Amino acid sequence: MKVDPQCSYCLLSTVHYESKLSTDNEMLIDKVMQECIRVLNETYAPGVPAASVSTPIHRRAYELLNDSDPYRDLKKVCNRTAEKVFPIARSMVYDGGPSDNELFRRAVLAAVIGNFFDFAVMGLEVPVSFFDETFRQHFTRGLDVDDTSRMLGMLDNVVYVADNCGEILLDTLVFDIIKELGGHVTLVVRGKPILNDVTMKDVIELGIDGKVDRVLTTGSGSIGVDMEQAPQELLDAFRDASLIISKGMANYETLTEHQLGPIAYLLKAKCRPVARHIGVDVGHSVAQLFEQ
Amino acid sequence: MKVDPQCSYCLLSTVHYESKLSTDNEMLIDKVMQECIRVLNETYAPGVPAASVSTPIHRRAYELLNDSDPYRDLKKVCNRTAEKVFPIARSMVYDGGPSDNELFRRAVLAAVIGNFFDFAVMGLEVPVSFFDETFRQHFTRGLDVDDTSRMLGMLDNVVYVADNCGEILLDTLVFDIIKELGGHVTLVVRGKPILNDVTMKDVIELGIDGKVDRVLTTGSGSIGVDMEQAPQELLDAFRDASLIISKGMANYETLTEHQLGPIAYLLKAKCRPVARHIGVDVGHSVAQLFEQ
Repeated sequence: MKVDPQCSYCLLSTVHYESKLSTDNEMLIDKVMQECIRVLNETYAPGVPAASVSTPIHRRAYELLNDSDPYRDLKKVCNRTAEKVFPIARSMVYDGGPSDNELFRRAVLAAVIGNFFDFAVMGLEVPVSFFDETFRQHFTRGLDVDDTSRMLGMLDNVVYVADNCGEILLDTLVFDIIKELGGHVTLVVRGKPILNDVTMKDVIELGIDGKVDRVLTTGSGSIGVDMEQAPQELLDAFRDASLIISKGMANYETLTEHQLGPIAYLLKAKCRPVARHIGVDVGHSVAQLFEQ
Repeated sequence: MKVDPQCSYCLLSTVHYESKLSTDNEMLIDKVMQECIRVLNETYAPGVPAASVSTPIHRRAYELLNDSDPYRDLKKVCNRTAEKVFPIARSMVYDGGPSDNELFRRAVLAAVIGNFFDFAVMGLEVPVSFFDETFRQHFTRGLDVDDTSRMLGMLDNVVYVADNCGEILLDTLVFDIIKELGGHVTLVVRGKPILNDVTMKDVIELGIDGKVDRVLTTGSGSIGVDMEQAPQELLDAFRDASLIISKGMANYETLTEHQLGPIAYLLKAKCRPVARHIGVDVGHSVAQLFEQ
């Protein structure tokens, strides 16, 4: 996906946010902002891939902050909150003993809803009962783009590219069902910390490595998947996959720049540029399959 | 007021917004955004006055859009909506025949609430009953910084620097009371269109020139008041004023860079940098007097 005008101010806003997560030193924050405006000016041009702007900006911010992971504490909050709400989501997915097709659809829906929730805010301010109610609303509403039936026959050898902490716990509902149906799951996480995204460290801390067949990394702390920095084993996994499942917007932004397939994008369309690229409205729940 | 990191992305967001108001040509919008990122990079530095970044950015956007007033239609919507809601505000100000002090305080409060309302959105989507209810809530809550009692003895020769269309109608409640108390009002509007701000054309269309003693302009289409471009008669008016009343955030951002006084700032603190500079919370209603 190409960069959109909206990405420019969304990026600077995110840099400001992560700078404040990392430090109280306002002179340092000023320096980070000024330098990231310089990088934005250097990299931003109509038609360039979104990640060719976002990755260098975040990288420069992390360097200047001298912080390998500004989201360190926030990721822990997200995971703790998601642990509290996981049983609610699980019971909705399995409620009434649904068919395989329905079970898979519900698990995918739960994972997509997980992509939408701001577990960090919830963990600090919102009671679990609010999650229960809001999750139920989104669950009842269902998927706005639903290709899960077509995905069901492709689950032999799934490569699942994870997105954020917190939501990764809801992703395990999908892993479980793929395994129950006899499929294999290769989980792909970021090679280094970037934003609130899942890394190998998070996977091990949460014990999720025991729920999948293997865990690979993107080989970098780039936004989404930077194919030029991807290890050979990840490229092989993509090539051999019966289905790639890509979670969230950053993976969508980067993987749509490559000829991969079959690939299914699971996400909540949280901003207008991504929603427009997919052809849905902001807020829509998407499970869209491209068979190539 | 100096530029804040938040100004950088707020500005790019506003440029995107006004570009879409002006044109459907996405290639032109792309060009405007890229060029305004360049101007942001050129002008943004910690410690520079906010308007030394915002004015050149908006000026460049208007040039590239080849549009002297992207907010043209929106301003009309704001004025029409404000005309509908004006009687509600007026009746609350005069309700029960208050004392001069209380009447002035209420009129100032109504003008400050007018600084908060998005008449453009209301005009399109929100019924007048909603305005009635919301206005009443803010009115009951009152001013969070209230120097109106001290201002009351300074109303002989007021210079009132206006802000946006729509809210200008509520400002007339203040003009009326100053006149009733025997004072003179010099209204100052922008020299050329900028954002949603009031110009001489708007004042004449709304008949507001008949409610004040004279109308001057800032001499430019800069954000707020650019003193270097201010006509001599405005500089004289500032010097001779018994009280300058500055409405809204853009005037606050620019006039706080100069030694003027006595000056009262009337505004809703709509963003964190301005709220912080004043020492209030975002959303607070402010009528703050500096006597110098």
